Amino acid sequence: MSQHLPTFAQIRDAAARIAPHATVTPVLRSAVLEKLAGAELHFKCENLQRGGAFKFRGACNAVWSLDEAKAARGVVTHSSGNHGNALAMAAATRGIPAHVVVPEGAVRAKLEAIVRAGAILHRCEATQAAREATAAHIQEETGAELVHPYADARVMAGQGTLVLELMQQVGGLDALITPVGGGGLASGCAIAAHGLRPGLSLYAAEPEGADDTARSLAQGRRVEPFVPHTLCDGLRTLVGAPNFEALRSHGVEVVTVSDAETVAAMKLLWAELKLIVEVSSATVLAAVLKQRERFAGRRIGLVLTGGNVDLSDLPW
Amino acid sequence: MSQHLPTFAQIRDAAARIAPHATVTPVLRSAVLEKLAGAELHFKCENLQRGGAFKFRGACNAVWSLDEAKAARGVVTHSSGNHGNALAMAAATRGIPAHVVVPEGAVRAKLEAIVRAGAILHRCEATQAAREATAAHIQEETGAELVHPYADARVMAGQGTLVLELMQQVGGLDALITPVGGGGLASGCAIAAHGLRPGLSLYAAEPEGADDTARSLAQGRRVEPFVPHTLCDGLRTLVGAPNFEALRSHGVEVVTVSDAETVAAMKLLWAELKLIVEVSSATVLAAVLKQRERFAGRRIGLVLTGGNVDLSDLPW
Repeated sequence: MSQHLPTFAQIRDAAARIAPHATVTPVLRSAVLEKLAGAELHFKCENLQRGGAFKFRGACNAVWSLDEAKAARGVVTHSSGNHGNALAMAAATRGIPAHVVVPEGAVRAKLEAIVRAGAILHRCEATQAAREATAAHIQEETGAELVHPYADARVMAGQGTLVLELMQQVGGLDALITPVGGGGLASGCAIAAHGLRPGLSLYAAEPEGADDTARSLAQGRRVEPFVPHTLCDGLRTLVGAPNFEALRSHGVEVVTVSDAETVAAMKLLWAELKLIVEVSSATVLAAVLKQRERFAGRRIGLVLTGGNVDLSDLPW
Repeated sequence: MSQHLPTFAQIRDAAARIAPHATVTPVLRSAVLEKLAGAELHFKCENLQRGGAFKFRGACNAVWSLDEAKAARGVVTHSSGNHGNALAMAAATRGIPAHVVVPEGAVRAKLEAIVRAGAILHRCEATQAAREATAAHIQEETGAELVHPYADARVMAGQGTLVLELMQQVGGLDALITPVGGGGLASGCAIAAHGLRPGLSLYAAEPEGADDTARSLAQGRRVEPFVPHTLCDGLRTLVGAPNFEALRSHGVEVVTVSDAETVAAMKLLWAELKLIVEVSSATVLAAVLKQRERFAGRRIGLVLTGGNVDLSDLPW
């Protein structure tokens, strides 16, 4: 694990490192949504990334950052969601083992995807302590490298690569908004965005029921503990320590949104962009529509983080 | 109305004509779907076209083909679906009136979209004769130009422009498959594809419950009458006379698919491409998966025609 923050140069390196494996995702616009927002909206479609989420970028950068000897011993993480799947897929691109620790009660479809990607599953109890202990045990046994879902400089650097792409695709923005959960995405994007354009306004959208980042920034220190209550399953994580530092030092402002606002925004994204996005992804549009005066008239990049949805269980 | 077939040069002209208004839609791939098919699949995403369907291309070309005097009198069509909406949107880009004749019983959400796009709605009975008579009456009264949904060279030329884009985006294909209903898309694409690459294999996917094109090609003449029975609401149309001629002369081969095969393919497209596509669009993937041996090992372009779906009424 590498807990410090990545530099802008490391994000550029990451972009070159993952280029042979990751998808350059398209940027889409919608006249209807722009009229609703009164702003120019550039949606960066990471739901179209490999594995259906931006997580592949960070996992891929971590996997390809390892030297040969280290890589041969494989990688390990604890995540039952998109990061576990992304790490499994990234490891497969290098032909190395991936160990994924999943808690009891994880969604079966997600576990099947991780196995399909070629990873070795390790079950544990559904507590943070059990997850970390199991991962540590696997590290000891195998020598595998821990790739944390967000509190890892290589992962943050990988996520930040999407901003380099986005800026090249749209040629300049006034503002950028990403969802925030653990903060791997938000912090990597903040470093990348300010590396390219120091004055860019940065926002993070957070569910009201998991607003630890908003409260942490308000208090100037990380709020713990934390009992999330939100439909946004990708954003139920406490913001990581290095991630929080990056958000604070880059002046990222948090906009909190209710789940009802997010679900309404999700439906708009499906209907108008014709894209399948996860509920967590819709927080960014919900935030821009909720604080219309704040965002109106600006040229905004919005990161659509993922599209892994249970199609037989939609929230409307 | 202009009933002859467009030339390849006219398709190139159409591409230049619609360029200021239409979206260059992305081409997406999926490792999972390619593994299922055993082929390289390049999906041309016309569900991301303006108005959510390829229809905007043809309507836009027709609208901008008119001279000033003719244009001032507006355009008229009979269609309660994507073409009516596309013509309304295309007319709005030129600031001219659009009259859309819609039968009783048409889907309310679609009518609202047509009105929102700025068209004048004209109701009539739900028969082909009533539609045509109403449209003819409006033509007489207003001098508006009839823009037929598919049996119109300007419309076919507009639809064919997507092949020019696709070929430039992917740099060569072995085969191309589109759905076939009235045949505006399939015929325009056939002319465009053979204009660029005379030996390209051309396929059309058709629902078993609306297989008039397959039967017409087998018999060497258009089969009429026709009672369609399929979930694919965009493909319930009898193939047009000029369209049939184009399909026959370009050697387009039809693959028929059941609605069950199409719905399964639709679900795969949603889950793997993270795209919202209409059921009619899924016929192309259903066809490639159904006749796996025929398509395996080839580099195939598949046209995803539209994404206008009632999200509260999914077919699974």
